[in-house]
Amino acid sequence: MNGATSLVKTMLASGVDTVFANPGTSEMHFVAALDAHPDMRCVLCLFEGGTSGAADGYFRMKRDVAGTLLHLAPGFGNAFANIHNARKAGSGMVNVMGDHAIHHLQYESPLKGDTVGISQTVSHWTRMSPDATSVASDGADAIRAARSRNGQIATLILPADTAWDAAEGPMTAAAPPALRQPDAAAVDAAARQLQQPGAALMIGGVALFGAAREIAGRIAARTGCRLVCDTLLARIAKGAGTAQIEQLVYPVTPKIAQLADVASLTLLGAERPVAFFAYPGKPSLPEPPGCAVTTLCAPEEDITWTLNALAEAVGAVNTEPVRTTLNLPAVPTGDLTLAKVGQTLAALLPENAIVCNEAITSGREVMPHTQASRPHDVLGGTGGAIGLGLPMAVGAAMACPDRKVVALIGDGTAMYTLQSLWSMAREGLDVTVIIFANRGYQILRDELKNVGVNSYGANAQAMFDVEGPELDWVALAKGHGVPGTRVTDADGFARVLRAGIEGDGPSLIEVVCG
Amino acid sequence: MNGATSLVKTMLASGVDTVFANPGTSEMHFVAALDAHPDMRCVLCLFEGGTSGAADGYFRMKRDVAGTLLHLAPGFGNAFANIHNARKAGSGMVNVMGDHAIHHLQYESPLKGDTVGISQTVSHWTRMSPDATSVASDGADAIRAARSRNGQIATLILPADTAWDAAEGPMTAAAPPALRQPDAAAVDAAARQLQQPGAALMIGGVALFGAAREIAGRIAARTGCRLVCDTLLARIAKGAGTAQIEQLVYPVTPKIAQLADVASLTLLGAERPVAFFAYPGKPSLPEPPGCAVTTLCAPEEDITWTLNALAEAVGAVNTEPVRTTLNLPAVPTGDLTLAKVGQTLAALLPENAIVCNEAITSGREVMPHTQASRPHDVLGGTGGAIGLGLPMAVGAAMACPDRKVVALIGDGTAMYTLQSLWSMAREGLDVTVIIFANRGYQILRDELKNVGVNSYGANAQAMFDVEGPELDWVALAKGHGVPGTRVTDADGFARVLRAGIEGDGPSLIEVVCG
Repeated sequence: MNGATSLVKTMLASGVDTVFANPGTSEMHFVAALDAHPDMRCVLCLFEGGTSGAADGYFRMKRDVAGTLLHLAPGFGNAFANIHNARKAGSGMVNVMGDHAIHHLQYESPLKGDTVGISQTVSHWTRMSPDATSVASDGADAIRAARSRNGQIATLILPADTAWDAAEGPMTAAAPPALRQPDAAAVDAAARQLQQPGAALMIGGVALFGAAREIAGRIAARTGCRLVCDTLLARIAKGAGTAQIEQLVYPVTPKIAQLADVASLTLLGAERPVAFFAYPGKPSLPEPPGCAVTTLCAPEEDITWTLNALAEAVGAVNTEPVRTTLNLPAVPTGDLTLAKVGQTLAALLPENAIVCNEAITSGREVMPHTQASRPHDVLGGTGGAIGLGLPMAVGAAMACPDRKVVALIGDGTAMYTLQSLWSMAREGLDVTVIIFANRGYQILRDELKNVGVNSYGANAQAMFDVEGPELDWVALAKGHGVPGTRVTDADGFARVLRAGIEGDGPSLIEVVCG
Repeated sequence: MNGATSLVKTMLASGVDTVFANPGTSEMHFVAALDAHPDMRCVLCLFEGGTSGAADGYFRMKRDVAGTLLHLAPGFGNAFANIHNARKAGSGMVNVMGDHAIHHLQYESPLKGDTVGISQTVSHWTRMSPDATSVASDGADAIRAARSRNGQIATLILPADTAWDAAEGPMTAAAPPALRQPDAAAVDAAARQLQQPGAALMIGGVALFGAAREIAGRIAARTGCRLVCDTLLARIAKGAGTAQIEQLVYPVTPKIAQLADVASLTLLGAERPVAFFAYPGKPSLPEPPGCAVTTLCAPEEDITWTLNALAEAVGAVNTEPVRTTLNLPAVPTGDLTLAKVGQTLAALLPENAIVCNEAITSGREVMPHTQASRPHDVLGGTGGAIGLGLPMAVGAAMACPDRKVVALIGDGTAMYTLQSLWSMAREGLDVTVIIFANRGYQILRDELKNVGVNSYGANAQAMFDVEGPELDWVALAKGHGVPGTRVTDADGFARVLRAGIEGDGPSLIEVVCG
């Protein structure tokens, strides 16, 4: 077998059976090897940003890695923004990037680029295979690296000759190294801290959903501490039955107000909170002066073990969490507002839905309404690079074919990776896409005010407004093979959303509020 | 004035008056500064790959730099592929990338990324301004760097506080350093070489169009040497009246055959030719063994001076070049084939048109027909990263508002940066876009054969074919505000192309050959 085949067999032997692919001319032997292994699921994305965003969404739901197949340096560049988002989400992925044959790298050929350099700016693990016989073990190492520390970005660079030369293998990836666990003294100290006045427990990673979230809820109920989470989250369980939690808001001034009374902040699977940006005269850190900030368990450490140890230390193993109770609003009628979009969504969202939320400004008005809906998961932007939402929905739908995916996407954001609509159609993915057509970059209009500019002229308007012409999302959806509908009133939105949820393929709703 | 204003004023004082922008939240002060200077032309692109591709197209036609405005690390990532293409084209551009305020960089905020690292993987010049008072001089240095060595990639990183703090300036960019010129002995040696049997002069850069191309033609006519150019070219003059030149083909075996009789290859403004990729058992270098390859003038050196010195040395100053004579085919009718697309284009292409060619496989059958059309310029892919064509057309049209732009784009390629259609509509650019809807990545189908795989199955087909669903380019154009028409016969193509050429705004033609 050649190197490419040894890699595909190594991936399959190691349980990696899904590849989001946008191959170029340097990856032909890898394509041939994939072709010979129909048990590998290859999902074509028409732009590399779709591959990395999909691998991120896949990991968030599956908690295991998919592969991406990328063209050499510029292809990785196209994937970069969503790799950045995945890195910030703590998602693991295995990127396979082609390169020129090693003997060809000495020449200034058109596609020659700094494959190692660009990978190292965003990957946790980068390796270029030196020869075909190394490819199987390098691939196994890449998979292990991607599964390590709760999920990492691993990038394996395959010069063309390492793919076509004779190889050995396959190999099976070793289990990732054990996660670091805090020592007993740290757990006991945290347990005491959480029982003091003004204590807050800030959780992240796997603590935000499933069984771990339950334990976090028990700890909060038992100790009386506040249970909080950050603004941008890879995945969080919401809706009826979930343990209640407070989420920090995005704007820095209200974020500071939210934490004003916090005397101690214990971090468990979460980075310390920090302002999204610095603003003139405003602090980078939102907690009050004198607040004790302690990392009990870093995001890359053993979050579930730490939660269990902490629950035992505070005597919360059998405590009942404070849960959200089901409270569905009536489906509204009449004029369409963002609040009514939220109410309609809250009323109709089916149990176990996955909501991919990249409606950056509209989402702030929509999402509060869904707090007491049927139980569901929300996946959000994590790295601030827009263009994640549609690819993430592709990956989530591939990971969970039995769950309904609803994607809430801003129009400015959706334009970055709109090609993912085609992948939804190609794969028949069960995704209902809601585009908020506010005709511009609303976040930038807001941010300009945040830096003290309250009126603006033609050049700023030209850069913030996506009008003249307006984008026609129904046509864009049709162009990609996805049926789309524009709605301008609440009744229409409810009707079309209901149809999308009852159907089992992709559809798009362009929401135009009055 | 603040740092952002000092930069905008420095750009304007230095003659940089066009910015292709996709700002994010970290560039708000720069947006405010642009807003206060309406003499700066700000062209919004709905994806960063549109900005860098447009700056490249602008430079190729204007021979001077435009700016791009990019969001921090992931935004630069999105721009990366077309920056790579621009680098390979020898195009200069000034990228302005925001970053966090310096005091905020110590925190793990969502958008924190390796701005310097990613820039250095593709830019010739990278600098992060340390404070606001440095911004004007850093900006002037960036512009000078971008104009140096016939055009370079210069990236200036502006932490937010360097934009908002009090600054000095503006400054005016110094003239770039003088270009290196070969010494007299090298010119004389080349002059002797070119008069020997089997001599070929391979030209690139500015030697391929305008007055310099004329001189190259004189040298070839006088010495009897072959005048050749590479496969992928930033810009070349074609059509009636231009000095004849042979272009190397893409596939490696015929490329080797083209050069089989070459005894010496003198490079003037061109890199040495090299196979696009290495293939098993085929050489990387296409020239025959024993062929003497001499670099008389590197692409970053003084190409025009060298051509003049060489013309004088061979006594060609008054020699008439061998020119292409006008030969327009009849406009064909009946079924549509790629050859008929080429003939129709050849017949209708107006004088002084700019053809942006990123029809990677279809172009090989279309472009030969336009050799004897009315005189025009052709801009092509240079770095092998697809997704250049539509943005490049935006930039070329901005640089030359009085010239008709015709963009020939493959459907696979067009999907990478289709957002540029909206910028064409927004700016009312005079671009006729021709999409070749061959429903897949034809180049990959070809390349798989090149590596020895002659039949393929479901996974390869899934990655090469863009069918199920087909893309609807008329709908995609409409979605971006551009009128589009699908044509399936030669008469229809001629009618719609004629309308596009006679009009003065953007339009799109989806070509479906039988």
